[in-house]
Amino acid sequence: MTERTPAELARRVTDLMMEHDAFSKWLGIEFVDIAPAKAIIRMTVRPEMCNGFGVCHGGVTFAFADSAFAFACNTQGNLAVSIENSITYPAAIRPGDVLTATATEATKSNRILYYHVDVTKQDGSVVGLFRGTGYRTEKRHPVD
Amino acid sequence: MTERTPAELARRVTDLMMEHDAFSKWLGIEFVDIAPAKAIIRMTVRPEMCNGFGVCHGGVTFAFADSAFAFACNTQGNLAVSIENSITYPAAIRPGDVLTATATEATKSNRILYYHVDVTKQDGSVVGLFRGTGYRTEKRHPVD
Amino acid sequence: MTERTPAELARRVTDLMMEHDAFSKWLGIEFVDIAPAKAIIRMTVRPEMCNGFGVCHGGVTFAFADSAFAFACNTQGNLAVSIENSITYPAAIRPGDVLTATATEATKSNRILYYHVDVTKQDGSVVGLFRGTGYRTEKRHPVD
Amino acid sequence: MTERTPAELARRVTDLMMEHDAFSKWLGIEFVDIAPAKAIIRMTVRPEMCNGFGVCHGGVTFAFADSAFAFACNTQGNLAVSIENSITYPAAIRPGDVLTATATEATKSNRILYYHVDVTKQDGSVVGLFRGTGYRTEKRHPVD
Repeated sequence: MTERTPAELARRVTDLMMEHDAFSKWLGIEFVDIAPAKAIIRMTVRPEMCNGFGVCHGGVTFAFADSAFAFACNTQGNLAVSIENSITYPAAIRPGDVLTATATEATKSNRILYYHVDVTKQDGSVVGLFRGTGYRTEKRHPVD
Repeated sequence: MTERTPAELARRVTDLMMEHDAFSKWLGIEFVDIAPAKAIIRMTVRPEMCNGFGVCHGGVTFAFADSAFAFACNTQGNLAVSIENSITYPAAIRPGDVLTATATEATKSNRILYYHVDVTKQDGSVVGLFRGTGYRTEKRHPVD
Repeated sequence: MTERTPAELARRVTDLMMEHDAFSKWLGIEFVDIAPAKAIIRMTVRPEMCNGFGVCHGGVTFAFADSAFAFACNTQGNLAVSIENSITYPAAIRPGDVLTATATEATKSNRILYYHVDVTKQDGSVVGLFRGTGYRTEKRHPVD
Repeated sequence: MTERTPAELARRVTDLMMEHDAFSKWLGIEFVDIAPAKAIIRMTVRPEMCNGFGVCHGGVTFAFADSAFAFACNTQGNLAVSIENSITYPAAIRPGDVLTATATEATKSNRILYYHVDVTKQDGSVVGLFRGTGYRTEKRHPVD
């Protein structure tokens, strides 16, 4: 790998991941802030993302948080994969809501990564609390 | 409500939910078996559901399991909502895989519902284990 | 109820809970800081709390975090009960380690409470990450 | 290792684990059935295991399920450790209740193990639903 600062590496890896991530594109995800062990992303909820109750499908909220988690835990160059994720939904999300997901590292051990992802909407209220546990492989992202 | 058998009620409620569930339609979900406190559904993974690693986005697998959970825990006519869900991913899913989600009631207390959802692919192997905790409201689905 | 500040109420309720909580006493839990929607507690790990690998039994770490969660989500006077809890263990804990659990409210909806509990040991490293989802009942603690 | 049947290995490993597991002994855990990838254990709830509401402390129920999980996922001879566990409590448990925990393998991938543990009381009703995700190390139990 060429010499890159950790911040450059984080952006390069996540750009590469995003370039090929068809579902994150379908969600309309944009990067707000990408840094080592951190990702803040944004998307707007569309009607086709909603369920029979007229609110955002829980799977969409989860997917959005999961993308933030995946971006964040790959920022340091090693390929990382999800082991287990959980989510709670403190409040309903409706079409037109603009969501922000903030993924931050809670802690890590040798190979296991622990992230919290908070999902908020435009008024700042929390609409999703996601926790992600990932496994850091030895494989490096082909960022060069 | 007119007199319906529990099996008829289960199908009527889930048909109504599905009719308005834009995201479950986008996923291409079909009902395989709907019964009181149970739902088996199916979908085929498309390239646009995949992430930057070329495998099905965890959010799609989650959403599919979550839909099965939502259908199953509304089958008895009371509107039920998710409190907390978790998922693990024992194996990768690729475009073209045909997934089946089987949601069954693990147990319930007065207002809280506990479901397991197993996601398998065409060869019968388990690719997702989802657990859903829901809250049963007093509100009835307008099935008449 | 007599007029109490929220801080007084928080301490009164948790003192009352602790007074009758045989298992938290067996754990040797002490209050470090109790405030509305918050609890910081401490305990020292004893050999009889360990498992066959010579490290603190996961159930003990969980129980300690769960007590912090229970104290914190009852501080405002309404009786609250656990719905679902999860825990991860970033590092092993050994006899003699002094643990601190910090329970803080992540968010809440009408009746559902969401808490994070971080468990650290004496050197400040994180040894447990617990998430608690609780249900706030209408019943008040008999604090007068 | 001498030649042992899988069933003998399962019993030998769990006997060895139990022999040194001070906390499982404090809980009063007895083996009901131990087999490869499976453990059924039993205990009786004592007053000192209860919380300020006079019901079994959630941490005790968790610890009991967690012990079943730990025994089950070590039965095949490789040392396995917990990554993440979650629990729900469908019903209250009281002093004198006799609990049974049944840990069964839901599925596994290369190194990750997924178990369900159901906790029931003497009347057969479900009082705890635990899910355990473990990591199978290369290290073997010293069973010879």
